[in-house]
Amino acid sequence: MASGQFYLSCLVLGSLGSMCILFTVYWMQYWRGGFAWDGSVHMFNWHPVLMVSGMVVLYGAASLVYRLPQSWVGPKLPWKLLHAALHLIAFILTVVGLVAVFQFHNHSNIAHLYSLHSWLGITTVILFACQWSLGFAIFLLPWASLWLRSLLKPIHVFFGAAILCLSVASVISGINEKLFFSFSIKSPPGQNQVEKSLKDPHCLVIFRKNATKPYASLPSEAVFANCTGLLVVAFGLLVLYVLLASSWKRPEPGILTDRQPLLHDGE
Amino acid sequence: MASGQFYLSCLVLGSLGSMCILFTVYWMQYWRGGFAWDGSVHMFNWHPVLMVSGMVVLYGAASLVYRLPQSWVGPKLPWKLLHAALHLIAFILTVVGLVAVFQFHNHSNIAHLYSLHSWLGITTVILFACQWSLGFAIFLLPWASLWLRSLLKPIHVFFGAAILCLSVASVISGINEKLFFSFSIKSPPGQNQVEKSLKDPHCLVIFRKNATKPYASLPSEAVFANCTGLLVVAFGLLVLYVLLASSWKRPEPGILTDRQPLLHDGE
Repeated sequence: MASGQFYLSCLVLGSLGSMCILFTVYWMQYWRGGFAWDGSVHMFNWHPVLMVSGMVVLYGAASLVYRLPQSWVGPKLPWKLLHAALHLIAFILTVVGLVAVFQFHNHSNIAHLYSLHSWLGITTVILFACQWSLGFAIFLLPWASLWLRSLLKPIHVFFGAAILCLSVASVISGINEKLFFSFSIKSPPGQNQVEKSLKDPHCLVIFRKNATKPYASLPSEAVFANCTGLLVVAFGLLVLYVLLASSWKRPEPGILTDRQPLLHDGE
Repeated sequence: MASGQFYLSCLVLGSLGSMCILFTVYWMQYWRGGFAWDGSVHMFNWHPVLMVSGMVVLYGAASLVYRLPQSWVGPKLPWKLLHAALHLIAFILTVVGLVAVFQFHNHSNIAHLYSLHSWLGITTVILFACQWSLGFAIFLLPWASLWLRSLLKPIHVFFGAAILCLSVASVISGINEKLFFSFSIKSPPGQNQVEKSLKDPHCLVIFRKNATKPYASLPSEAVFANCTGLLVVAFGLLVLYVLLASSWKRPEPGILTDRQPLLHDGE
């Protein structure tokens, strides 16, 4: 029963994760002009795609390796290698996603790391780097003592879930920020208002090309991107649910659960 | 030992939670013109303060009631009442925070619920309302069977933590959004550029009074508000850590932990 629910959750997770990536690709391709690697805004478009793919979807999938019933029997090392390798790929995608936004900023003379989105995002990536390196040194390399491993395991597990939460929060603030960049905040003022305001020294004028509609009028791109954000949230919550559900955790030696007989059936 | 660490965590949580509220109040009072209840932008200023106080700090504190060692002995009902009452106060603060932003929008002819921040925020508040009502009906009123309570308890606990994560993500995207509203996105263009751009039909002109600096130049308000966001994240993560740490959970009947003797000492 628990096993069936677990595989159903995996199916939902796979669908949600694919939709998160596909929706982000579609948003960037259809409404934001597609992809390039030339420092332009089309290079920026890799940023949301790679962050959603790396820091959320692949990271989430890599976190769940030890929840697979197959990982409960036999040697643990291959599963540790898979867990570390998937997280490493997620980290590489994340770094490439950061290169995309930094090169776009350099190319367009935009300051780096000023918004709360960027502060939270870079904190999350640094935590991810620390988590991967410490995990590799303590849990994969053979020289850490069992005592040290049991001491650090709950911290590793907690930060694993915490980094996913921070990634989702970074993605949400990033999508929100991108939509405020892409659309105007208010409806365009009339020509008279423009001329009057130009004489007012307290007015600031900002130009946004191709921003024909305000975000508040919810054009189709805004609805689509908002839905993409909610999909990312749903994926993140489901990963956390599967991670935290006690009946899906690797059992301690000597404890039987209702999922173990299924494993032996398949062996 | 575990008890000492728990109280140390409570001390850090109390300090972090107070700082989250005080920083938000100071931001609104010092840089955004203070508070009023008149539909103006000063009425909006209640929104961040009440959401941080209600949906994050008081919600987090209310979630931790069953981690207090005092709650492990004697009748559970007074602790249930405290848990429900604190969450109810958190919910009331949240609703007043929503009234503040809705009335400001009505007064200034701004559309409601268009940004991803608002979609996520309202989803979180609806989940909170469902969580409180179901919790009240199932765990506080006397008619639910033990079977139903044990079936729903893990779901109640999971959604308790999930709502806190969503609240923190909503607050982060909200602070980010507020800073993009408060500051300009780029430096003001020169007069020639303004005149040239006015003739370009693809240009949109937006006016923002009192927005004298771009967010990217990180004026002191932006640094302060970004730090407030990171404080909220730190508070949320610490609440989740205390919630999930197995040695601080209410022990099952018959299981002793190293914290229980301390309780009996104080009885």
